[in-house]
Amino acid sequence: MFASLHCDNENVTAKTLAELGEFGLISLVQESLGSSDYVLIGSGDDAAHIATADGTYLVSTDLLIEGQHFRRDWSSANDIGRKAIAVNLSDINAMGGVATALTVGLAAPGDLEVAWLRELLAGMVAECDKVGAHIVGGDVSAADHVILSITTMGDAERPVPRSGAQPGDVVAVVGELGMAGAGLGALSRGFRSPKAAVDRQRVPEPPYAAGPVASAAGATSLIDVSDGLIADLGHIAKASNVAIDVSSAAFEIPDAVQTVASALGGMDPLGFVLTGAEDYALVGTFGSTEAVPEGWRPIGRVQTGTGVTVDGQPYENAAGFEHWR
Amino acid sequence: MFASLHCDNENVTAKTLAELGEFGLISLVQESLGSSDYVLIGSGDDAAHIATADGTYLVSTDLLIEGQHFRRDWSSANDIGRKAIAVNLSDINAMGGVATALTVGLAAPGDLEVAWLRELLAGMVAECDKVGAHIVGGDVSAADHVILSITTMGDAERPVPRSGAQPGDVVAVVGELGMAGAGLGALSRGFRSPKAAVDRQRVPEPPYAAGPVASAAGATSLIDVSDGLIADLGHIAKASNVAIDVSSAAFEIPDAVQTVASALGGMDPLGFVLTGAEDYALVGTFGSTEAVPEGWRPIGRVQTGTGVTVDGQPYENAAGFEHWR
Repeated sequence: MFASLHCDNENVTAKTLAELGEFGLISLVQESLGSSDYVLIGSGDDAAHIATADGTYLVSTDLLIEGQHFRRDWSSANDIGRKAIAVNLSDINAMGGVATALTVGLAAPGDLEVAWLRELLAGMVAECDKVGAHIVGGDVSAADHVILSITTMGDAERPVPRSGAQPGDVVAVVGELGMAGAGLGALSRGFRSPKAAVDRQRVPEPPYAAGPVASAAGATSLIDVSDGLIADLGHIAKASNVAIDVSSAAFEIPDAVQTVASALGGMDPLGFVLTGAEDYALVGTFGSTEAVPEGWRPIGRVQTGTGVTVDGQPYENAAGFEHWR
Repeated sequence: MFASLHCDNENVTAKTLAELGEFGLISLVQESLGSSDYVLIGSGDDAAHIATADGTYLVSTDLLIEGQHFRRDWSSANDIGRKAIAVNLSDINAMGGVATALTVGLAAPGDLEVAWLRELLAGMVAECDKVGAHIVGGDVSAADHVILSITTMGDAERPVPRSGAQPGDVVAVVGELGMAGAGLGALSRGFRSPKAAVDRQRVPEPPYAAGPVASAAGATSLIDVSDGLIADLGHIAKASNVAIDVSSAAFEIPDAVQTVASALGGMDPLGFVLTGAEDYALVGTFGSTEAVPEGWRPIGRVQTGTGVTVDGQPYENAAGFEHWR
């Protein structure tokens, strides 16, 4: 779903989409969004929460376009299928829900190999199986590149939005951080190792069970780390109207991240952990240390104010990925 | 959603997507579809019907790709936005339901004008407003062409599938037939008139209220005319395991269709009515003439057997549109 809520950069003078930028376009689309009694949680969260005549469901959608989100020379069809589903299931996880049903839009060029498509679909189904979700329908079309459009529906007993963090809450994370970003760094320079990081860039391993656990534990806010930890904590801070400070000492640097940071000329490995995208870990806030579920790592505190800091200081270079840049 | 159910052409020898064809790809995807207790109506209908923990909803998805489904030199941005939403709302209408919530995936090239995007979004919202539905979220990306991926959710008290037609049922239709196809014929030859037909190709006018009315009237099957009347009746016939015969005398030929047929060299105008795509009329079956709702036109009968006939004879040239051909 949309990465951020109520963006400020209303670039009314932009003539083209490239000038407007990704967040400007999201702003433009958000102006078109409707609200009504049955929109319980609307745009700007990981998923929307919608009422039916007799119940509720969560829904989230993601577009994945060849060249923008995946490369056929970097990843197998199976891996592309798994990742496409994983990023969608993660959105439902990030609401504290369990995904149940998905629709798939698939467009592709005529010269695409059928064997590649079979592998793509097998990867999709394998990832769905991890949470017991099913593809229930879709649409196909011709296109110049492979395009995947996935919409995921799910259930949550108590959906957890981004907007409930309170000053004094403990910030905690579950899942890997920095691995996918380090893998992207390696692949971008033509490396195919370290395998652990490259594999994670190709296929994330979201902690699927953790979202419902966080919901049951009373999490006050929740988001998945898709844009990078600092950027995604920024979405919580903004939606909740609070500040968040994280402690650099709270993080372990995975070996593979350390290896990539060294190989790329002595970069700070903490940078991958704090700003690397696409790990699909979960980060949330809890009312007390005791409320943090087992397996989650406390990394900071919610405070009054705005913005995200590391050890009390602004963190440089914290911008997430943006299209048309 | 997918145009057809349980396709037969399992082309296991095809090496490329172009060889496999659209229906072969749909078959391939359908092999990947899952089923479970909460999938009340699955793939192969206009929309899926899904159970939540406490209720149910309908969901359908459509991909619309520049050059395949619309052309920026043929239609205004507003018209493209309206049509993109209309074809989706029609899928919910075709289940006898009312659309409530939509997600929109939007990809576009960087040089696209912001003014065009604003018009597109305004068209989308205007069409949603016709049924009281709202866009509740989405995703954006860069791409070489404009790509729209729309998923629509809705409610139905009694969803009407394609599979319930019984021998002896009356076949009836509501809405326009042949206008959009005639408009496409005109546009394809470089004409910009007759306006009534060209306008309908640019923006359909689905009979939105008619789906829930048909459901309440006890319709035994229902589908929207997206591929062409004969092709879509073929989907009902196949899903219901029946034959359908329509009477050519039952149809009125709109003036604009007559005009296009003459201008294009004396084509049979009935061809547009019987095989023209994208009108988004509704056609369904009812247990008796008395059960047919007001405003619907009886056009034929359900019989034992298979396939669709016109005046008892197979109709030539009844194939619908297919990608990669």
